[in-house]
Amino acid sequence: MFEAAEIGHKLSKGEYKRIEPALRADLLDVQYEVSKNGTFPVIVLISGVRGAGKGETVNLLNEWMDPRHIHTHAFDNPTDEERDRPPMWRYWRALPPKGKIGILFGSWYTAPIIERVFKRTRRADLIQSIDEIRHFERMLSDDGALILKFWFHLSKRRQRKRLKALQSDPETAWRISERDWDFFKVYDRFYQVSEDTLRETSVAWAPWTVVEGSDPEYRTVAVARALLEAMRARLAAAARGQPQSKVSEAARLTRPVDKRDLLTQLDLTQAVAKKRYETELRKQQRRLSLLTRHPKFREHTVIAVFEGMDAAGKGGAIRRIAGALDARLYRIIPIAAPTDEERAQPYLWRFWRHVPMKGRYTIYDRSWYGRVLVERVEKFASEFDWVRAYAEINDFEEQLSRNGGIIVKYWLQISKEEQYRRFKEREKTRHKQFKITAEDWRNRKQWDAYQRAAAEMIERTSTSIAPWTLIEANDKYFCRVKVLTALCDRVERAISA
Amino acid sequence: MFEAAEIGHKLSKGEYKRIEPALRADLLDVQYEVSKNGTFPVIVLISGVRGAGKGETVNLLNEWMDPRHIHTHAFDNPTDEERDRPPMWRYWRALPPKGKIGILFGSWYTAPIIERVFKRTRRADLIQSIDEIRHFERMLSDDGALILKFWFHLSKRRQRKRLKALQSDPETAWRISERDWDFFKVYDRFYQVSEDTLRETSVAWAPWTVVEGSDPEYRTVAVARALLEAMRARLAAAARGQPQSKVSEAARLTRPVDKRDLLTQLDLTQAVAKKRYETELRKQQRRLSLLTRHPKFREHTVIAVFEGMDAAGKGGAIRRIAGALDARLYRIIPIAAPTDEERAQPYLWRFWRHVPMKGRYTIYDRSWYGRVLVERVEKFASEFDWVRAYAEINDFEEQLSRNGGIIVKYWLQISKEEQYRRFKEREKTRHKQFKITAEDWRNRKQWDAYQRAAAEMIERTSTSIAPWTLIEANDKYFCRVKVLTALCDRVERAISA
Repeated sequence: MFEAAEIGHKLSKGEYKRIEPALRADLLDVQYEVSKNGTFPVIVLISGVRGAGKGETVNLLNEWMDPRHIHTHAFDNPTDEERDRPPMWRYWRALPPKGKIGILFGSWYTAPIIERVFKRTRRADLIQSIDEIRHFERMLSDDGALILKFWFHLSKRRQRKRLKALQSDPETAWRISERDWDFFKVYDRFYQVSEDTLRETSVAWAPWTVVEGSDPEYRTVAVARALLEAMRARLAAAARGQPQSKVSEAARLTRPVDKRDLLTQLDLTQAVAKKRYETELRKQQRRLSLLTRHPKFREHTVIAVFEGMDAAGKGGAIRRIAGALDARLYRIIPIAAPTDEERAQPYLWRFWRHVPMKGRYTIYDRSWYGRVLVERVEKFASEFDWVRAYAEINDFEEQLSRNGGIIVKYWLQISKEEQYRRFKEREKTRHKQFKITAEDWRNRKQWDAYQRAAAEMIERTSTSIAPWTLIEANDKYFCRVKVLTALCDRVERAISA
Repeated sequence: MFEAAEIGHKLSKGEYKRIEPALRADLLDVQYEVSKNGTFPVIVLISGVRGAGKGETVNLLNEWMDPRHIHTHAFDNPTDEERDRPPMWRYWRALPPKGKIGILFGSWYTAPIIERVFKRTRRADLIQSIDEIRHFERMLSDDGALILKFWFHLSKRRQRKRLKALQSDPETAWRISERDWDFFKVYDRFYQVSEDTLRETSVAWAPWTVVEGSDPEYRTVAVARALLEAMRARLAAAARGQPQSKVSEAARLTRPVDKRDLLTQLDLTQAVAKKRYETELRKQQRRLSLLTRHPKFREHTVIAVFEGMDAAGKGGAIRRIAGALDARLYRIIPIAAPTDEERAQPYLWRFWRHVPMKGRYTIYDRSWYGRVLVERVEKFASEFDWVRAYAEINDFEEQLSRNGGIIVKYWLQISKEEQYRRFKEREKTRHKQFKITAEDWRNRKQWDAYQRAAAEMIERTSTSIAPWTLIEANDKYFCRVKVLTALCDRVERAISA
């Protein structure tokens, strides 16, 4: 991939002077159109070898366009808040909102490549990283992001020359350190690993552009033109009303012909008597409290997810978990309508932001599964968006799990009759009136559609690392004991692994 | 203050059992009303001696109320992202939005008290901290927050007994460490320093409630009742349409009778020829670039603020600063309408969140001064709100400055005629049409009111640590050179101090 960027691309100063004014003006214009359009972010990755002009190019882009609408992020060593979470957390934090341009210096590619070059990881690790990156970029692209990835290249001979030149000029000597020469020593290996990585990640929705970095005029115009063309093409497509990517008909699960599924199979008559409930609840709460204090728990996080029909008892079950824990250790995130900052980001962003640090719990009262439940049934999300959510969610949970996350997902199942009884009861009870709204009655009319969506969701997203626990919830006592017991079992297994 | 909390307050188990159910139900009810009301946050500070039941009480509050609408934050050692910013940054981050209850364990009181107890600070430092805390809480209260501060107290004898009891029970022994006994050794000093601090900070808008911590039933009911009553009273006041705190007539500055002020004094005919501009600009940009690379710069941050009438040339001046800097080192924050997450917080929250780390620049294109400019003139803010903003802003800037912040504030002044010329020009130029809107023409009609507000703002907020630099901006070249020169001067002075 790099050969074409070693042929000595050049642009004469005269040529550059001729091109520059219109290119700048056009870029600025298009930047404002992207901002006014406001439906997609532009994500620009700047990577490549040292001394190839990455920094200079980014500075120029900031100078040519309106820097107030560019978010430039340089990823140095992660902070301790970042180190404690899955590696992608810091990139999610830095994503530009819709309508803005984000320039990322050093990106999700840096660590996998560098670690492999210096043999701190195995080839299999690199392949896994590449796979994850493809999924991540696919998600961004599906979500509408325009992704441009630039790789600044220099031939070995030119890089040596360039580093020496920088070093001998007192103006620029400060930019060159021991580390740069350490990198130069492994040039060949770096070449190989990056080329492999680029080849594997140069995909239709996020292709790489390799830029020869030796001539400042050439590289500037190359990057600026590519950016301009890409933004223009995207705006034109948006104006035409870009066709939504198609969903394969095979992606639609039909309901089993016998109408039986995991949910209809449940025995909802299971119950626990009050006395036994009280003993058992206390026992499990005590168990959870002890497990949480176990020294090995500090290497883990718990991410608990509660889903279920309205009035299924999610709140009550959550409070029984909270009751066993120190309030400093958990955070409960009730999922309501997204804020406007959340709406300007990819769907999972608003869940990523609450990912706990080690030793902590985050309990989501409703969750990212809303995408394939309420948003699917009520048609708030397009079919394309909710179908792709299955894969995105699995990726997300896998990342949480690899970071020590114990993911416990509950579906609380009640019968339609039991829901009716609870709605009526809530309307009568002073303390519970706030819990019942016209919307609840409306949703109830869609009971079957919700059940079908839930059954499909469970089928598609129950993985070994993040299995669903189905809870027969007609009896509240039975429900709470089962919820707590399942949580304890999962935590116990994780810390004794 | 503590004597009354050493008399052995107790509540019998029977009494407690009688009170508890209604108290819980009422608290839950009122919590939902606060949430539905949505106009103010409830901030609960939990402080006091060890072993006095702080943790247990917070857990109970979370159990009794709906923990999904409580944000509990425990402040442990600051993370590196926090350490790099002014000390209050971490508390701003943790403030609950309107409608929610925030329980803060360990708060802005912890460090000042502990540092003083162990004599790592002088008495004068404590007094200064107390002063800052008063201002901060005053701001929160003025902004509508309901603030409750609980201090859990134990007599020396009871604390010793309690620590021993915890230590000898295998169930709770893990909670007691060497550190707890270290603290116990300085009990008397701790008593003295905290009592002083509490006395100085028990103010009408944020009073302390001292709670005797030895009896679990008593302390729980004491805290729960206080919280319940305070929320009820606030809701009742809100329902009556709480009278806005009054602004003293003396707070209103009248315009000087001769109509001369700092702005009318400026000589707007000053200009620089193009050739000299180009030389001078390059010189100052180079100077800024070198200053930024100075090793001592890494102990500082630059916070630059641009204010001025529409079309005064803020964007152009900002781009000349950006042009001198590495894009990784600055962030430009254009101030537009607040997002809904920002609207749910005190006014300065949306500026605090962008405070830079050491070695970085944040450039605000319009700023917190909007409160006393556009929000004042257009009456978006009540008089009470914009008048108190002067003092709040001075506090904010003082905190930035103490953290190594170099605060450079520019007012770009143009004449009314020059503004007209620029508006007309913008309407004609393709690239600049986006810059001119109907609103700009509307604001122009209020020219005099804006000028008066600006003159007053400059008079009230030009401090030695954060002076305003007035820029005669009719000539763009003159303006940009003066902006850059002033910035360089300030940075130079700071790093050679």
